[in-house]
Amino acid sequence: MKFFQNLVWVAIFSLSGTVAAQTPVYLDETKPMEDRIEDALSRMTLEEKVALCHAQSKFSSPGVPRLGLPENWMTDGPHGIRAEVIWDEWDQAGWTNDSCMAFPALTCLAATWNPEMALLYGKSIGEEARYRNKNVLLGPGVNIYRTPLNGRNFEYMGEDPYLASEMVVPYIEGVQSNGVAACVKHYALNNQEYDRHAVNVEVSDRALYEIYLPAFKAAVQKGKAWAIMGAYNRYKNQYCCHNQYLLNDILRKEWGFDGVVISDWGGVFNTKEAAYNGLDMEFGTWTDGLTNGKGDAYSNYYLAQPFLDLLKNGTIPESVVDGKVRNILRLMFRTTMNRNRPYGSFKTPAHASAARKIAEEGIVLLQNKNNVLPIRLCETKRILVVGENAIKMMTVGGGSSSLKAQYEISPLDGLKARVGDAAEVMYARGYVGNIDGSYNGVVSKVNLAESRSADELLDEAVNKAKSADYVVFVGGLNKNSHQDCEGGDRTSYGLPYGQDRVIEALSQANPRTIVVLISGNSVAMPWIDQVPAIVEGWYCGSEAGNALASILVGDVNPSGKLPFSMYVKLEDYHAHSFNDSIVYPGLNHQQIYKDDIFVGYRWSDLHKKIRPMFSFGHGLSYTTFEYGKAEIDKKVVRQGESLRVRIPVTNTGNRSGAEIVQLYVSDLKSSLPRPKKELKGFKKVDLQPGESQIVEFEIDESKFSYFDDKKHAWVAEPGKFEILIGSSSSDIRSKVAFELE
Amino acid sequence: MKFFQNLVWVAIFSLSGTVAAQTPVYLDETKPMEDRIEDALSRMTLEEKVALCHAQSKFSSPGVPRLGLPENWMTDGPHGIRAEVIWDEWDQAGWTNDSCMAFPALTCLAATWNPEMALLYGKSIGEEARYRNKNVLLGPGVNIYRTPLNGRNFEYMGEDPYLASEMVVPYIEGVQSNGVAACVKHYALNNQEYDRHAVNVEVSDRALYEIYLPAFKAAVQKGKAWAIMGAYNRYKNQYCCHNQYLLNDILRKEWGFDGVVISDWGGVFNTKEAAYNGLDMEFGTWTDGLTNGKGDAYSNYYLAQPFLDLLKNGTIPESVVDGKVRNILRLMFRTTMNRNRPYGSFKTPAHASAARKIAEEGIVLLQNKNNVLPIRLCETKRILVVGENAIKMMTVGGGSSSLKAQYEISPLDGLKARVGDAAEVMYARGYVGNIDGSYNGVVSKVNLAESRSADELLDEAVNKAKSADYVVFVGGLNKNSHQDCEGGDRTSYGLPYGQDRVIEALSQANPRTIVVLISGNSVAMPWIDQVPAIVEGWYCGSEAGNALASILVGDVNPSGKLPFSMYVKLEDYHAHSFNDSIVYPGLNHQQIYKDDIFVGYRWSDLHKKIRPMFSFGHGLSYTTFEYGKAEIDKKVVRQGESLRVRIPVTNTGNRSGAEIVQLYVSDLKSSLPRPKKELKGFKKVDLQPGESQIVEFEIDESKFSYFDDKKHAWVAEPGKFEILIGSSSSDIRSKVAFELE
Repeated sequence: MKFFQNLVWVAIFSLSGTVAAQTPVYLDETKPMEDRIEDALSRMTLEEKVALCHAQSKFSSPGVPRLGLPENWMTDGPHGIRAEVIWDEWDQAGWTNDSCMAFPALTCLAATWNPEMALLYGKSIGEEARYRNKNVLLGPGVNIYRTPLNGRNFEYMGEDPYLASEMVVPYIEGVQSNGVAACVKHYALNNQEYDRHAVNVEVSDRALYEIYLPAFKAAVQKGKAWAIMGAYNRYKNQYCCHNQYLLNDILRKEWGFDGVVISDWGGVFNTKEAAYNGLDMEFGTWTDGLTNGKGDAYSNYYLAQPFLDLLKNGTIPESVVDGKVRNILRLMFRTTMNRNRPYGSFKTPAHASAARKIAEEGIVLLQNKNNVLPIRLCETKRILVVGENAIKMMTVGGGSSSLKAQYEISPLDGLKARVGDAAEVMYARGYVGNIDGSYNGVVSKVNLAESRSADELLDEAVNKAKSADYVVFVGGLNKNSHQDCEGGDRTSYGLPYGQDRVIEALSQANPRTIVVLISGNSVAMPWIDQVPAIVEGWYCGSEAGNALASILVGDVNPSGKLPFSMYVKLEDYHAHSFNDSIVYPGLNHQQIYKDDIFVGYRWSDLHKKIRPMFSFGHGLSYTTFEYGKAEIDKKVVRQGESLRVRIPVTNTGNRSGAEIVQLYVSDLKSSLPRPKKELKGFKKVDLQPGESQIVEFEIDESKFSYFDDKKHAWVAEPGKFEILIGSSSSDIRSKVAFELE
Repeated sequence: MKFFQNLVWVAIFSLSGTVAAQTPVYLDETKPMEDRIEDALSRMTLEEKVALCHAQSKFSSPGVPRLGLPENWMTDGPHGIRAEVIWDEWDQAGWTNDSCMAFPALTCLAATWNPEMALLYGKSIGEEARYRNKNVLLGPGVNIYRTPLNGRNFEYMGEDPYLASEMVVPYIEGVQSNGVAACVKHYALNNQEYDRHAVNVEVSDRALYEIYLPAFKAAVQKGKAWAIMGAYNRYKNQYCCHNQYLLNDILRKEWGFDGVVISDWGGVFNTKEAAYNGLDMEFGTWTDGLTNGKGDAYSNYYLAQPFLDLLKNGTIPESVVDGKVRNILRLMFRTTMNRNRPYGSFKTPAHASAARKIAEEGIVLLQNKNNVLPIRLCETKRILVVGENAIKMMTVGGGSSSLKAQYEISPLDGLKARVGDAAEVMYARGYVGNIDGSYNGVVSKVNLAESRSADELLDEAVNKAKSADYVVFVGGLNKNSHQDCEGGDRTSYGLPYGQDRVIEALSQANPRTIVVLISGNSVAMPWIDQVPAIVEGWYCGSEAGNALASILVGDVNPSGKLPFSMYVKLEDYHAHSFNDSIVYPGLNHQQIYKDDIFVGYRWSDLHKKIRPMFSFGHGLSYTTFEYGKAEIDKKVVRQGESLRVRIPVTNTGNRSGAEIVQLYVSDLKSSLPRPKKELKGFKKVDLQPGESQIVEFEIDESKFSYFDDKKHAWVAEPGKFEILIGSSSSDIRSKVAFELE
């Protein structure tokens, strides 16, 4: 009876048009996505189309309420899900359900050299975004490490385009398996924070295609990224967020990108360029704060009222906004309107375990003279921990990647928890850093007030060091402005706050002084020969202290390798070697990348006098690995053929460990100058003591190619090549030559 | 190759346990819901279970982030989707995407006597809730109209349990078709606002079952409501939010309710009672504001830490919390975890049209001497509109139902828009009301400042009235405290702000003075014989002015009928007739419903000297309807049989219209005292001029029954009955007798 009544009502409503009798195409899941997009587009008013193209709040943009198309909600990544903020302010909204899991910084992920870890990272952070109802994660970042002063290097994946490409793809796949779009950033050439809102980067097409774009291209073509973020800076004197060359010519036409282009927050400056040059969604432009009588304080956005006006008066044809709306609808259908996406999860034990595992695989043992590490707890009575970074929260600060973490285990707490009653863990601060920094209202003030003088702090540390079995100095940089922080570059290469003096004094007081650097960048290490052990500890998020303790006491055998080169002094870096402001940091908002394709090890390979402190790809283990002789399956490689490379690797130590076997290609002779070698393959292999494994690579033609500016094409030039297999870029263990026909 | 790699990774993760290889039962949509509930429950910690049972913010409660079970987000209804508020405050959060469509108040919906309108209402508001990502709509309200002073009557569906039952069911079905739970409120006996947080209601089982519970029972058993809200008041000296009798005995055991019981905000006072007496989710309890070191300011909730403590020390067995969690999980699986639910839509033209249609069907033409209405525009030069309610926003205020509407058409604006150039629409304020009221931080301050004296305002109106063809006085109550507003009752029956004086003066100045009452309650009308026309205009939401204008000028033929009786004076109401505080409003927090089952017309039917101004079921049309003779299909009805009733109804006027044909049952003789008649059927029929239609009813045994306190059972007692068919409860057009065996 009731069922019958309902049927009657439905019939009545259908007749009167109050209730649609049929599912419209755009809501019909049996229809192809592109058909649904066209159907939705055809139902929208011009105003509704334009509304989709710009923000409605700090991190959201409207859907089409009338048609039931959901809103888009972004969240800063790439290291965790940002806390909710007030509607149109940077300040946190004071919610209590948004404390996230903080994952390690992307430099640490890159240092794992393990695509499985990138997949796990992406999957985990994607689950967090999904649970928090965000459909766009603003990450990962893949700008190339060009200078150690770049305040944002910690958010990126190092200096090598191949490593970054291999790591970014599974990250994206992991994120997007949750029905959450990864938004790869900052496209492109945002390789420094200094003058980022104005600087115009001049770079050769060759360097652009060989060095600065490959990770973005891999993200788009292999990772199938659904979103990309324009950079703040300019290229060819046009802002990257509405850049004909980068967005229309390369991203859309050459790469076939079908996702959305999102502006960096406040990176839009011109309505016509934004309209025509590939931008889809404008965020973060300053609002006039007026509600304009319509509850819309965002009407002054370049892609808001000014865009609508030009569309209405015919200056810009409607096809222009239609193109943007198609991309935005595609985003919706892939994310919020994908009924099959999972529900996500948040700050779970599985995510904690992922964060810890990634950190443990990423921490790099840089130096370990006399095997001073791991700490032998059974022979230890007292461990002295020194340094502010042993107690300082590093998930807060650094700019947009700042997090409200559910928890963060400091190095000191992690070590104390691991050591337990086995030994006494003492602490001395050793020095005082500046204790607060803020960026966009994210204040990283922590209660580290200290009234003692530098000398008093040093004396205390040195005195305690004398009676300790081990001294663990935990220093480095932090997330304050002009350290590892968005919005500005570091002002010098050295450690801040007089840490060098402290390390030197400690190393004199105790020969077993271990230096742990918490940073996302290389620093000068004038004390390198005075300390037996150096560990690059990165910013490791919630599980930082636990992961570091595992490495230090040897629960986990370190297996991370550097994703960028560490040089002795700033001038050893290509961007600084010219000693020319036009190369870095730019002059009158102009910058020329004279270093061209010779970035990182590609640069130092050319200059014999530059000896890296620690090379790209370097990282020690508590065990040792022996490499056999590399073999190839053919001496002559013809066009379209692949080359198979095999090399035996043996764990020759007495504990299990993982080695990252690196394959570099060297073009012995070519028409254009080429780097001595370029990374074109790597495998991370787990080996038990005494175990041998044959590591195999398959290398296709693309890996022998360079980008020919004049032809505007990738060229694999016939001739002699060498395959170099090594444990780092400067530790080549075997070479094998072949001929490319 | 990439696909192969992914497979390898998945295999690796599965082996290491990082990624689950199989979908767990609770996420497996091929499994029955109850199996999924048990599986999810089995995976939860005690802390996670308890967390589900109480709020995390003003309007949300946590899910289980670890397991990916989403949060629950409530929104105040029942007339529109409440604006977003600050995390733990009543103040609005300042979002600009949350301006909703305001639908008519539920009294207006009830006055349509049209279940199709209730379905349309529920479907529309459910779409709005869904679009705003709310999975529980806090409505509809079905408390019985017991006194015209009740500040919240406008949110309910009148005095008759049958009418409310028939209207609440399709509303719920409409809401829930969106995957949004309707939360029926306030269960039970919350029939006044005065002393609502303490008053203990004593009522006979008979009145409880026959008058106060039927709409809730219909909501649960026919509407299949997924949620119900406990009332603030007490019953049998126990708070209704944790009441053994109402929740365990009746709701769960007698009715078989399997949804969630949600407390009214701040309606919980005892952990053990809340644990044992049927409450599932506690909201709105005052927090201590402390984050307790865990980001949880809600730990002092009765179903938070105190509950957890009693569970942990074994005082309360875990089965108690498990029962609650099962209900909450069922809510999740029905709403947020229903992949097939639609996406909703928000403030759409369709919703505007729904709001307007419901309003047009609900507005009641109470009196229309000499057919003064509709306004004949072709003969009209000047219309004078008088009264504050012609210009006052009514979507703001009134308590929790206050809305941030996308727009609200005032009566003056609606009339002006409709009249256009056809005539001059003048306005005079006539009187000054108090201009702001606030409740829970919802401030209804509007810019209605007025510096002129009452006499000046009156003189202006009277002077203008003299030259007008029509005077439309738009007055009544408003949403300020102690008018139609949550949290307090009205303090007198009369119109506030000296409106009676204004109406009388206007009616003397102009014989064509039409009174429009904007209210959710009856008021005294001492001027009833001095004005030709009276319209009950309700609170009609966004489209209020348009709907009213349609009625006034005759675009729409009024068809609403009163869902409650309007009496001359307060003492005519059952709750006030005893002139005894214990009956109303209660004495020392005790109240006795001496009026028992004799509510509204059931009361006045017993007392010849009480003549309603306007009876329950009364409402005029611009056309006229003639009733023929009622016929029944049998003279003797045996147990289990239905009775079919037919009556011809004819539109005898010259325009189309709709008549609400009402069927009352009269038990001519019974063991227990019974009302003279009770509504047991109604049909709204559209008739063209001259058209006749046979209206049919089918009446089953339940409609002849009364509730026998002693047997605790419904009894259909054999004997003589009469079926009365009428146009209102006091306008019976045909009677027909039968015998129940």
